[in-house]
Amino acid sequence: MENKNKNNNNYCVIMAGGVGSRFWPYSRADKPKQFLDFFGTGRSLLQMTVDRFRPIVPIENVFIVTNVAYKDLILQQIPDLSEKQILCEPARRNTAPCIAYATAHIRALCIQRAYGYTEEYQGFTKDGKVKGGPSKSSLPNYQDIDWSKPEMQANIVVAASDHLILEEEKFRQVILKAFDFVSKHKAIATLGMSPTRPETGYGYIQRQPEAFVDGIYPVKTFTEKPNLEMAKVFLESGDFLWNSGIFIWNLQTISEAFRYLLPEVADRFREGELLMGTDKEEDFIEQIFPKCPNISIDYGIMEKADNVFVLPSSFGWSDLGTWGSLYELSEKDENGNVSLHSETHYYDAEGNIVVLEPGKVAIVQGVNDMIIVEERGALLVCKKAEEQRIKEFTNNLLNT
Amino acid sequence: MENKNKNNNNYCVIMAGGVGSRFWPYSRADKPKQFLDFFGTGRSLLQMTVDRFRPIVPIENVFIVTNVAYKDLILQQIPDLSEKQILCEPARRNTAPCIAYATAHIRALCIQRAYGYTEEYQGFTKDGKVKGGPSKSSLPNYQDIDWSKPEMQANIVVAASDHLILEEEKFRQVILKAFDFVSKHKAIATLGMSPTRPETGYGYIQRQPEAFVDGIYPVKTFTEKPNLEMAKVFLESGDFLWNSGIFIWNLQTISEAFRYLLPEVADRFREGELLMGTDKEEDFIEQIFPKCPNISIDYGIMEKADNVFVLPSSFGWSDLGTWGSLYELSEKDENGNVSLHSETHYYDAEGNIVVLEPGKVAIVQGVNDMIIVEERGALLVCKKAEEQRIKEFTNNLLNT
Repeated sequence: MENKNKNNNNYCVIMAGGVGSRFWPYSRADKPKQFLDFFGTGRSLLQMTVDRFRPIVPIENVFIVTNVAYKDLILQQIPDLSEKQILCEPARRNTAPCIAYATAHIRALCIQRAYGYTEEYQGFTKDGKVKGGPSKSSLPNYQDIDWSKPEMQANIVVAASDHLILEEEKFRQVILKAFDFVSKHKAIATLGMSPTRPETGYGYIQRQPEAFVDGIYPVKTFTEKPNLEMAKVFLESGDFLWNSGIFIWNLQTISEAFRYLLPEVADRFREGELLMGTDKEEDFIEQIFPKCPNISIDYGIMEKADNVFVLPSSFGWSDLGTWGSLYELSEKDENGNVSLHSETHYYDAEGNIVVLEPGKVAIVQGVNDMIIVEERGALLVCKKAEEQRIKEFTNNLLNT
Repeated sequence: MENKNKNNNNYCVIMAGGVGSRFWPYSRADKPKQFLDFFGTGRSLLQMTVDRFRPIVPIENVFIVTNVAYKDLILQQIPDLSEKQILCEPARRNTAPCIAYATAHIRALCIQRAYGYTEEYQGFTKDGKVKGGPSKSSLPNYQDIDWSKPEMQANIVVAASDHLILEEEKFRQVILKAFDFVSKHKAIATLGMSPTRPETGYGYIQRQPEAFVDGIYPVKTFTEKPNLEMAKVFLESGDFLWNSGIFIWNLQTISEAFRYLLPEVADRFREGELLMGTDKEEDFIEQIFPKCPNISIDYGIMEKADNVFVLPSSFGWSDLGTWGSLYELSEKDENGNVSLHSETHYYDAEGNIVVLEPGKVAIVQGVNDMIIVEERGALLVCKKAEEQRIKEFTNNLLNT
């Protein structure tokens, strides 16, 4: 299966810029959770994410968008990536600018391949004219790009670097199905996880009741994280799916979506577009990226576009968003206690999760439903029910 | 005051062989609590204990009884002690053999000074005759020792190495008063702490209502740790004092007490007594010490002797026996939380004590009245009310 599906037109964008503050003190600014071997398997979440795509995306088509601080760490963890595949954000601007950058980068590579490239070309002016380069250019104006050229065919999956997926083969089958769909339709696709509990920690996607094609449904609405009552209604209705944050689209479709729905972001990248992949990319990005608005792809594109489709899926997914979600996923003893990475002896204790550095030992007596984490000189003791406040707590610390 | 009171006849025996298991994981077998800088003052409890006696006992008259494993640590911490002042127990045998050893050691030094010494003398036979040495010895039989010789005058204070005493000058005044008393009377003296609360963690001493001399009372009974109801009765009665485990006696008095009340211990030491202070001491002790019964000085001597006196005292004493007692002593924030050695940020938390290695940081949310300690790779989370079980918990660990 590998060779058949590892289409050169398949691209993967992995977002790895998060700081994982909800997993303090395990995840810290100097080594956020995507770089950690969360489950003691010997592979970090990022490594597991990249590995997951290897059978269906050529490694040279994998791009990781991250903060510049983590570039070396990524090259260490994924040694078969070239430096140019790591797209560094000079500032934190949420997911829309992150994805716009990756999209512009891939688009530039495609244009360069489709039309040839000399260093004089730099990008496009605001009205789409070629900027820089010889007056008689082989490069078309932006609006005249021939998207049907084989080099312009790019199916892109965008995923987080710090999610857990248990059934990876099932996951790849869904991605391939979505690739096929978006290559034939001007569709923005997203994966919606079939909910198994009235989870209040996730956003939900409501699908239309009728499928557009087999297993792919038009999206009716995106909703914020619900309260428990609402989550129960969502679960019962059968039309609501967890928003996984995994997106699949065609290069042309997402380029147009940014152009029409988020021009204040798209325009910034278009100007220096053909500097992508050259020595000038970093300077260009440092100049324009911080000027992008702080906006999420959900808010900026998904909730506004009218061509969004969802593939209901179930392949053992968790966004590993919180200690609580990690607790839910982990093996428990007869009293519902979880011990990760280390040895914990529980007495009169139920429903706790204790995470220590490997080789450490803990005795925990007389507490229930707590998160207890000790890592690199910092200790957290917090009720599971109050874990959304961890970010607040750590903000109060001078040194995290 | 120092010079006047630093009488060459004043001796001090410090018991430093405990493993401090109730303070796990802060106190561990490789470095028990007496060797730790409990309060972050830069001095360990043992160092503070030695320092406390310096103004009234010449340093060459200070003896530390400990496990052989801690000898080097003690020489490091108290560099002006000579190796011969560290009396090593080859086995753990509770306080009576420990004190018998120190008594025999001091007695041997006194006899050697009073009567001269050649290596041929080794000790006394069971019936008190001189053992070894020339047939016509300058050494008297044991029962003929002239205790009135100036070299035989030794006032000894016996104290633990891991107690806290806040008012040290007041403490020394009481010790000097006791020294004076025991040098004039065949009395076994102990310090009884005037109770300030109905503490159930201490044993109590009941004094006779009438003083024997000003401020010194005959002891009526020793009692075990009471329950709370009983402790309240004790507190109200005014005749009950906390048993501090600090003893003061004259060399002759304690020698006789051991001889009559604990001959099964005393006899073992008498046999090789004059090997004390020589190269043969270690071998001798290794041979006889493990054969001593495991018995406390309280049970073996104090509760049986009829010449026990108590000096009611108050100088800010704690035996630092448990995390709870450390909590009681420590400065608390407005919610009754204690942070030792490190920085702890509390939220929705009351009455906790958190102890971390210096430089570490903790966030503690949603727990009350807990002990939370992280030290050298081990974490303890335990209700204060259940701390007597810490020993049980640690016994269940393979590696502590």
